Amino acid sequence: MSIEKFTVTGMTCGHCVASVTREVSKLDGVTKVEIDLPTGVVTVESKQSLNPNAFAAAVKEAGYATV
Amino acid sequence: MSIEKFTVTGMTCGHCVASVTREVSKLDGVTKVEIDLPTGVVTVESKQSLNPNAFAAAVKEAGYATV
Repeated sequence: MSIEKFTVTGMTCGHCVASVTREVSKLDGVTKVEIDLPTGVVTVESKQSLNPNAFAAAVKEAGYATV
Repeated sequence: MSIEKFTVTGMTCGHCVASVTREVSKLDGVTKVEIDLPTGVVTVESKQSLNPNAFAAAVKEAGYATV
């Protein structure tokens, strides 16, 4: 099991949080996504360590950017 | 035909704009909804003058508030 934290920019409301949560949750092995809106910190729990490029792609798909 | 402007607070992104547009568009007689995100000004085109209470209720339904 892996827990990793990433920072995502541009999220301004609950809809943004929902969009990012939805896309990141689709990634292989992801079991939990938690997002702190004020800081943009996304905590991802997954079966194995995430591929940062896959994470960045999911965030981009949702319409946001990684730091 | 009627064109009216209202101000809505709390919209921060395109999702917020979409939510308000969707709810206000459901109001009886509404033919067009335009929202300026930075100012929160919502311009509504409708067949007859809008009931301000109905407008406020639609905005509240979307999760935002009128001024």
